[in-house]
Amino acid sequence: MCTGEYEYPMSKFDQQPHKVAIPPPQPFIKSLKLTVKETLFPDDPLRQFKGQKPSRKFILGVQYIFPFFDWASRYNLSFLKSDIIAGITIASLAIPQGISYAKLANLPPILGLYSSFIPPLVYAMMGSSKDLAVGTVAVASLLIGSMLGAVVNANEEPKLYLQLAFTATFFAGVLQASLGILRLGFIVDFLSHATIVGFMGGAATVVCLQQLKGILGLEHFTHGTDLVSVLRSVFSQTHKWKWESAVLGICFLFYLLVARYVSTKRPKLFWISAMAPLTSVILGSVLVYLTHAEKHGVQVIGELKKGLNPITIMDLSFGSQYLSTAIKTGIVTGVIALAEGIAVGRSFAMFKNYNIDGNKEMIAFGMMNIAGSFTSCYLTTGPFSRSAVNFNAGCKTAVSNIVMAIAVMITLLFLTPLFHYTPLVVLSSIIISAMLGLINYEEAIHLWTLDKFDFVVCMSAYFGVVFGSVEIGLVIAVALSLLRILLFVSRPRTSTLGHIPNSTIYRSIDQYQNAKTVPGVLILQIDAPIYFANSSYLRERIVRWVDEEEDRLKSSKENSLQYVILALSAVGNIDTSGITMFGEVKKVMERRGLKLVLANPGGEVIKKMNKAKLIEVIGQEWIYLTVGEAVGACNFMLHTYKNAEKLTTGSESGKESRNDNNV
Amino acid sequence: MCTGEYEYPMSKFDQQPHKVAIPPPQPFIKSLKLTVKETLFPDDPLRQFKGQKPSRKFILGVQYIFPFFDWASRYNLSFLKSDIIAGITIASLAIPQGISYAKLANLPPILGLYSSFIPPLVYAMMGSSKDLAVGTVAVASLLIGSMLGAVVNANEEPKLYLQLAFTATFFAGVLQASLGILRLGFIVDFLSHATIVGFMGGAATVVCLQQLKGILGLEHFTHGTDLVSVLRSVFSQTHKWKWESAVLGICFLFYLLVARYVSTKRPKLFWISAMAPLTSVILGSVLVYLTHAEKHGVQVIGELKKGLNPITIMDLSFGSQYLSTAIKTGIVTGVIALAEGIAVGRSFAMFKNYNIDGNKEMIAFGMMNIAGSFTSCYLTTGPFSRSAVNFNAGCKTAVSNIVMAIAVMITLLFLTPLFHYTPLVVLSSIIISAMLGLINYEEAIHLWTLDKFDFVVCMSAYFGVVFGSVEIGLVIAVALSLLRILLFVSRPRTSTLGHIPNSTIYRSIDQYQNAKTVPGVLILQIDAPIYFANSSYLRERIVRWVDEEEDRLKSSKENSLQYVILALSAVGNIDTSGITMFGEVKKVMERRGLKLVLANPGGEVIKKMNKAKLIEVIGQEWIYLTVGEAVGACNFMLHTYKNAEKLTTGSESGKESRNDNNV
Repeated sequence: MCTGEYEYPMSKFDQQPHKVAIPPPQPFIKSLKLTVKETLFPDDPLRQFKGQKPSRKFILGVQYIFPFFDWASRYNLSFLKSDIIAGITIASLAIPQGISYAKLANLPPILGLYSSFIPPLVYAMMGSSKDLAVGTVAVASLLIGSMLGAVVNANEEPKLYLQLAFTATFFAGVLQASLGILRLGFIVDFLSHATIVGFMGGAATVVCLQQLKGILGLEHFTHGTDLVSVLRSVFSQTHKWKWESAVLGICFLFYLLVARYVSTKRPKLFWISAMAPLTSVILGSVLVYLTHAEKHGVQVIGELKKGLNPITIMDLSFGSQYLSTAIKTGIVTGVIALAEGIAVGRSFAMFKNYNIDGNKEMIAFGMMNIAGSFTSCYLTTGPFSRSAVNFNAGCKTAVSNIVMAIAVMITLLFLTPLFHYTPLVVLSSIIISAMLGLINYEEAIHLWTLDKFDFVVCMSAYFGVVFGSVEIGLVIAVALSLLRILLFVSRPRTSTLGHIPNSTIYRSIDQYQNAKTVPGVLILQIDAPIYFANSSYLRERIVRWVDEEEDRLKSSKENSLQYVILALSAVGNIDTSGITMFGEVKKVMERRGLKLVLANPGGEVIKKMNKAKLIEVIGQEWIYLTVGEAVGACNFMLHTYKNAEKLTTGSESGKESRNDNNV
Repeated sequence: MCTGEYEYPMSKFDQQPHKVAIPPPQPFIKSLKLTVKETLFPDDPLRQFKGQKPSRKFILGVQYIFPFFDWASRYNLSFLKSDIIAGITIASLAIPQGISYAKLANLPPILGLYSSFIPPLVYAMMGSSKDLAVGTVAVASLLIGSMLGAVVNANEEPKLYLQLAFTATFFAGVLQASLGILRLGFIVDFLSHATIVGFMGGAATVVCLQQLKGILGLEHFTHGTDLVSVLRSVFSQTHKWKWESAVLGICFLFYLLVARYVSTKRPKLFWISAMAPLTSVILGSVLVYLTHAEKHGVQVIGELKKGLNPITIMDLSFGSQYLSTAIKTGIVTGVIALAEGIAVGRSFAMFKNYNIDGNKEMIAFGMMNIAGSFTSCYLTTGPFSRSAVNFNAGCKTAVSNIVMAIAVMITLLFLTPLFHYTPLVVLSSIIISAMLGLINYEEAIHLWTLDKFDFVVCMSAYFGVVFGSVEIGLVIAVALSLLRILLFVSRPRTSTLGHIPNSTIYRSIDQYQNAKTVPGVLILQIDAPIYFANSSYLRERIVRWVDEEEDRLKSSKENSLQYVILALSAVGNIDTSGITMFGEVKKVMERRGLKLVLANPGGEVIKKMNKAKLIEVIGQEWIYLTVGEAVGACNFMLHTYKNAEKLTTGSESGKESRNDNNV
């Protein structure tokens, strides 16, 4: 047996190898408590309450639920100045966007204004983000329109439709608040970034397509949201296209896009883009008023009722036959709204270096929507575009939301008649311009270069939404994302390790070209927790590694395999199937005359092996702290064996070692 | 800054630390091919075909599909002797069990015999297990009875019911064969060991409860399978209990249990237990014939038609209104039968040290059930009890199945009239005695000691089946198992590492009590792949570790934290969300004046970091091959910094280093 070509620093192994420790046993209740804490309270929200006096605890508790009382005491005039500027800026965006998105949901336009009045006030009290601007969003609006529209026609039964919209909002709020209270906020994390990029892009495309109705001044339009239905609907009535409307729409769209382009190039000019929708509305309204274009095919908003939000708590229809639709709509839109709001809140918090408790935010969103459903508002969240404007306008605290709400209130009380002549086509232009920003093709390219599977998920969501429906796209994308996790778990990577020259380090041969295999020893690394879903696979895969290695050694006439070392550093957890698997692998190796050696089993693994009495089966002396020490021991044995071979006849000693293995 | 108390072997770092290699880029197609191969062909089934002549390839191909032609040429007389003994033994078990299980499925008893004739022959040609004995199983029979019984009453519309049973069997076969052909066999792995233990125990309990009908000689019985319905049904008609039947049943049950107990204690006496059902049937029949007990409340099987399986290929009812029920029944029973058959095949193969290709086995099972559905058979698989008898009886190859089939054929042709007087109560006793062996309470206790979550899964399956239904139990258990995987992925373990004295090794402080933390450095190990489902959590958790460490240092007045090392050995994979997370963590650390250091990123991680240009952001010089080298570098910097502090004023150098961080 020649080991001359392989230089191993034997001197390292003069010292005793280190023992693998079994973590001290924990009482069941304690470990359960720890698991629950890590699962549901990873951010340890009650840390600040520890060791405080009861009165202080009460104040902290109130401040915990209403962060407003926490920062209000530190509020000052310079903050107020910044917040007023930011608040007015977002109000100028909120008013036209609110009206547009309400149209998208087939709801009366005035609801868009109502929804920018009460919910921002609730959020200002309960929310912990300083930058989030509350309002309605296009995707959720579209979803409400399509999901409720599937069972009730908004034009034929407007009252019922409105009731269902409020009921759906109520359930969305209840869902959001419950997720937060039950600390289940991590469910939102299952909407991956790739899913959201694809889904948002698809939804934006669909919303843009819907705007063809407004741009072309069509009166009849398909109820479907998919590309095929919309294009068929548009091109089947080319004779009804209204050029006046189209010209107006394209002009305003051009104006809005130029404004946005300028703001993107010079972030300091953010207000150009922020004010553009309002100026479009004003310009459009004045134009229609002067030319009386409403009589020439340009549709206008018409009468908007003056006054604040009517109370609608009695309108929630829990007894309706469409209750299940309302609940479903509430759940789907609630989750999507949550995902957007939380992501937006987190990214700005990251930017300004403060913390956001996702679960607390969910409670705030939930309460805001429950309160909204009582006061004529439909689903609101923290839209990205509006929050970005808020941030750019220099907001300091949630007071900017209060300022916006006051501005909207003034509009509701005194200015609604001004919107009478606002052409719908301007609203369509505003929506399209906002939506184009959501089609993030650069991110899709980034996903392609970085991770092909994420790209597939993203594209599936996009095409699912565009060719199917918003729900189909979402379901496909979430299913694919989950499938990916399950695939990863059921097919973990295994790789052979080699020795990195001049060190005691062993690393994957695929990654480190200079890593050298050790003669007579196969070192396998398992790169995932071992579970029922992968234990059969791993057993087969380990055997195949051994088969392939033995084939290779045979064909290259090298010394035969003697030891198989499993490097378990990456095995973070194991279940009973995994433990059984180790026992089986041990048996297979024994039968083939190979020694199974374990390197660096983690706490969970060694603990369960101990409980299952597997340590005795494998042999305490065959479990090492590092791959290096395991290889050292194997080499030591190989040398001893080699010397023994010199003394006795080879075949006999070979047999002996085989018998040893079978004990 | 005092590092005196911490002895670090600085001499180790005289040499240059090793560089982390980025694995060579692979063309997309190649890596896709590799992924597909690892996912669908982990056992590399076509390896033997490589480099063979076309004629040889053809022969290998035929042998691959029909393993019979592979081993038939090596078959010899001594094998035949063993196989005949084993075959006759399992036939003596198959005949009474077949009749009993058919009754359980509300099917004519003769179907149980038909099902032990054709399917074993098909399996003998196509299957690769040497020990599996083919036959019907209790759980699948019960499921067929309850699922089909929910839509069609077997007594009122026997023909339709029979057609649906064959159709369900056909779909089960199609599903099994397709899973095998599409190499999706790993889906079966998602039924974990814990699930199967609980599910089987629950199903066995339910089956035993159903036997109360036969034992007590009741004529009317609930259609429900849950404990509550059955007990209510039994105790609401106490006046109809037949004591003759009950006495007979209990006597036979006692006999069967004693026989099994003897066989368990002395495995060589396996034939006592194997023959017991047949002797019970013979004894019971003789007893009834002599005493005319059938006229005194003991129900008997009655007329059994002579002759072989009638062809039923034309009876498959694809146009029926109950098609969806048949498909659903086929899918559920097909998967359960597959799970049992594959597990049984694998465990005996493991025992005798030969390989079984799960996907190939699935094709064999599928073809066996498709052929069965054409020839009056219902769902068959490889039941554990019968295979164990086969194994104990010393079977050598699948020829024992052929022998069994021939024995059953002879029975069908000549001996069926003998079963006329067989009392149903004996069949019930046979079923109960078989089922009691499936309630594996010892394994449940084992699960409790080893893994509490597995125990919960097992118990949920058990109680779901017993108090709900077989399907409910199965759904609960699978959902819980999947939830566990998702929970693991969404809440990965993180732990702090410490230095193991007299080494360059760093290990978890929880596991190794002697591991010592390094002053000024926080070493965190992440124990799972980083995905969208856990990236938000990990970001928050890392920040919390830093918070807690800084709090601790402050309260113990130690030196402040300077470096955070992330040990990434266990991060086997990462997606775009994970990459983004690293960027964010880097920013947070910078803002807090901490240096982020990475240790041992794996191939996938470093590749994606490189593509995302994250290596430049973090700094090539802050990525190390081992935790030891990373700590060494940090200590080196701490020393330099300390010396620099001595030369200049502390505050200035402090500022500089802060500014450096913000670049």
